[in-house]
Amino acid sequence: MSDINGLYQELTEKLKQVSLLGSCAGVLGWDEQTCLPPGGVEHRANQLSLLAGMVHERATSPRIGELLSSLEKSGQITPDGDDDRSANVREARRSYDRSVKLPRRLVEELSRVTSLGQQAWIEARKKSNFAEFLPWLEQIVTLKREQATVLATGDGPAYDALLDEFETGATTATVKAVFDPLRVELVQLAAAIRDSGRTPRTDVLKRSYPVDLQKSFAIDAAKKIGFSFEDGRLDVAAHPFCSGMGPGDCRLTTRYDEHDFPQAFFGVMHEAGHGIYEQGLDRTAYGMPLGETVSLGIHESQSRMWENFVGRSYAFWEHFYAPLQKTFPKALKGVSIDEFYAAINTVGSSFIRVESDEVTYNLHIMLRFEMEQQLISGKLKCKDVPEAWNTQFENDFGLKVPNDSLGCMQDIHWSGGLIGYFPTYALGNMYAAQFFVHAEKELGDLNAMFCQGKFEPLKKWLNEKIHKPGKRYTPQELLFHVTGERLSPTPLIQHLTKKFSALYGL
Amino acid sequence: MSDINGLYQELTEKLKQVSLLGSCAGVLGWDEQTCLPPGGVEHRANQLSLLAGMVHERATSPRIGELLSSLEKSGQITPDGDDDRSANVREARRSYDRSVKLPRRLVEELSRVTSLGQQAWIEARKKSNFAEFLPWLEQIVTLKREQATVLATGDGPAYDALLDEFETGATTATVKAVFDPLRVELVQLAAAIRDSGRTPRTDVLKRSYPVDLQKSFAIDAAKKIGFSFEDGRLDVAAHPFCSGMGPGDCRLTTRYDEHDFPQAFFGVMHEAGHGIYEQGLDRTAYGMPLGETVSLGIHESQSRMWENFVGRSYAFWEHFYAPLQKTFPKALKGVSIDEFYAAINTVGSSFIRVESDEVTYNLHIMLRFEMEQQLISGKLKCKDVPEAWNTQFENDFGLKVPNDSLGCMQDIHWSGGLIGYFPTYALGNMYAAQFFVHAEKELGDLNAMFCQGKFEPLKKWLNEKIHKPGKRYTPQELLFHVTGERLSPTPLIQHLTKKFSALYGL
Repeated sequence: MSDINGLYQELTEKLKQVSLLGSCAGVLGWDEQTCLPPGGVEHRANQLSLLAGMVHERATSPRIGELLSSLEKSGQITPDGDDDRSANVREARRSYDRSVKLPRRLVEELSRVTSLGQQAWIEARKKSNFAEFLPWLEQIVTLKREQATVLATGDGPAYDALLDEFETGATTATVKAVFDPLRVELVQLAAAIRDSGRTPRTDVLKRSYPVDLQKSFAIDAAKKIGFSFEDGRLDVAAHPFCSGMGPGDCRLTTRYDEHDFPQAFFGVMHEAGHGIYEQGLDRTAYGMPLGETVSLGIHESQSRMWENFVGRSYAFWEHFYAPLQKTFPKALKGVSIDEFYAAINTVGSSFIRVESDEVTYNLHIMLRFEMEQQLISGKLKCKDVPEAWNTQFENDFGLKVPNDSLGCMQDIHWSGGLIGYFPTYALGNMYAAQFFVHAEKELGDLNAMFCQGKFEPLKKWLNEKIHKPGKRYTPQELLFHVTGERLSPTPLIQHLTKKFSALYGL
Repeated sequence: MSDINGLYQELTEKLKQVSLLGSCAGVLGWDEQTCLPPGGVEHRANQLSLLAGMVHERATSPRIGELLSSLEKSGQITPDGDDDRSANVREARRSYDRSVKLPRRLVEELSRVTSLGQQAWIEARKKSNFAEFLPWLEQIVTLKREQATVLATGDGPAYDALLDEFETGATTATVKAVFDPLRVELVQLAAAIRDSGRTPRTDVLKRSYPVDLQKSFAIDAAKKIGFSFEDGRLDVAAHPFCSGMGPGDCRLTTRYDEHDFPQAFFGVMHEAGHGIYEQGLDRTAYGMPLGETVSLGIHESQSRMWENFVGRSYAFWEHFYAPLQKTFPKALKGVSIDEFYAAINTVGSSFIRVESDEVTYNLHIMLRFEMEQQLISGKLKCKDVPEAWNTQFENDFGLKVPNDSLGCMQDIHWSGGLIGYFPTYALGNMYAAQFFVHAEKELGDLNAMFCQGKFEPLKKWLNEKIHKPGKRYTPQELLFHVTGERLSPTPLIQHLTKKFSALYGL
């Protein structure tokens, strides 16, 4: 037994070192998005590529393989057990087996190309010049296809391996099984809303909202829902994100537009949701699976919960609307809370995913999900992406895409090599609905709490049920453990139907 | 010969990798000073310690030692030669021999303790609480003493080894040899100024200078003298510094006080001088000695040149004073350029080194130089630093230090382990004077150019003579190569005497 303790200790030390080195790359990645001067792009790509290679080398050291084998054979570890050691060993094994399949050359090349590719995307997007971005997209898709082939395990399409990277256990088939029924309901709901004839005034959201006041208001709200600025910060980036860099350091970004209040505010609520998850991890387990977030889908359930289930609720604004009016007296003079609530929940066709409403948001995801499958299978060529995008978008949303910045170049993901990531957004919406329903069962009327500015009960519940376990369970196990249910689109559909029926008089 | 090419190639690859990894730590270090949330301090110390250990491991890899030996024996390398290969091998050898003496444990410990120590210093300084900082200072001095002992080569005091880290070839004795005559002259000059009875009005500098305008004005000036913001940026930090992170990425920091115009402005000029050096390095030699700055003394000659010889000259303000008045019309209404020039060049006793005038600045340095020698020799105990500081300060400046934030805790250096660094500031002032005199010989009347806003001739001269060579020469060789002179306090004394005699009617 004391031998086993020694081996386990050695394993945890090694895992912690890998995480610590990886977190250094995390700082450089954050800095690249927020601070890096244009001239430093190439040097940064070299730095990140070096670190990626070093992290990979350490993560795949044969000694970790030996330690895992010894521990697995020791009789002290229960396969699929959820005690600390069994869970750490199980998840370390999963990660190790995955990493050793990847050649270091591929890891370094992916890091370098996506670092340069992201900067190229930023420039190309400004000019809506897809041709300028195309060579980068082609390199990235080629590398991701290679990655998918190397990682492939089951009989499914190669794309499955990319999905699995972000959502353990998810496959094209399991995602389709929930996306398909969700799509049917969403299309119906969107049509009913369109036919309702109601069109809330949204011009009030486009008035002048001075950026510095937007910032301080968003920070106050993020604090109120439980994001700690002692252990984090908020900056500006071209594409909003949240980066958890390790204990006590979690960073949110957003982008401000004086004439678009919801963009920055709900962006901050969203990223703060991610941040609350990161800040809720068990610090004592830092660097081991038990101290890590479980999956991107679960991560997204946290951001979407605070953004939508909380931030876009009527109850939230019963608490926050008076201070909002006080902060922006000119813009909101004579605007009632009901008008404001209707405006921030307007359902309509938007070109931009991150600015879309709760109903159509998932249709944006499904479009990307289909397109990614085709890019990886080779059915769709990179050069044909704009046309394919625009055609499908017109089918789904009834709008002609005027340029690629509002179309296939709007998101950072592909330029950063994050293919297989998008579906986790819609999975997150479904998880969020399931968690929210269950939280209400256990905590009582959450909206009644939000009205009074009480967000701590929900936050503590999420801390306890979802954040603290880290990777103790797989995403599906966690969902079942917390709610007693399997993944289902039904709670999300019910939430949306109820909310928008009331708003649109359906 | 082709074998030798291969070995040289391998050496340069290895050196570049070490630099690249070191530059990652540079990003984390910058971030620590400018962005890190308080909660992330400990994690950051762990990250930096890991990177320091890894850099050290790579820098001391036995293969580098073998490559150096093979190249040295090859007959292709001239000892003390200044061709590319000889210079790179010579400096790589110097650095390697130094690094292999340091145990990895000491390197990691120094990184960790100084990272935490700096944060402790920031907090303690706010409260002027030396007792809170003392345990950190004690740890740091102990570690630096160990480092000095390990590195010691000659018969001189251990402190020599610390000096040599920042200024190759400098010793306590060589520094004293120039400091002593400089001190005599400075004390005389300061006394003559005091006795002149002239006391320029400085209250005009304490009026309201809105911070955002200070920032944009300083950025404009930094651009004008030649710092590229395509390849750099300017941020806020508790202690101003310049950090060259690699090709295309050099960052300046400053601190603003609405009621103290000179602090931020001359701080930016100073750091921009450092930055122009970093940006002037030969990019194609990145990661090798020929692509590195030669020493801190030479580095400081560049910052002091732009801050003082340019920025505090009458000619500079002949160009910049009209725009300055336009930017701050209220503060500078009715203030003539002569009054302004006298105010920014007031000589007086200041508690704070970085805010002191050109005459007394070097006395601040000499105080620290003496104290550091005593700390390392053990003659002075850490706990007695405040008393020793205050006594010496009163001797030199005739002022009682009211608290340690204005005394021995004002500088970041000791908390960051930078003992042996201070003397390079005064060496830099002497180098700057020597370079400036020589630049004028070659370029003609520089002040006539500054009047017209022409700074490029000086910048290009510095680029060519001082920046591009990197570490091709040692500091003393470079000085001789550029000016044909040895280090001397005379040009600095002449500059100060001429400038301040005119200002104070001596």
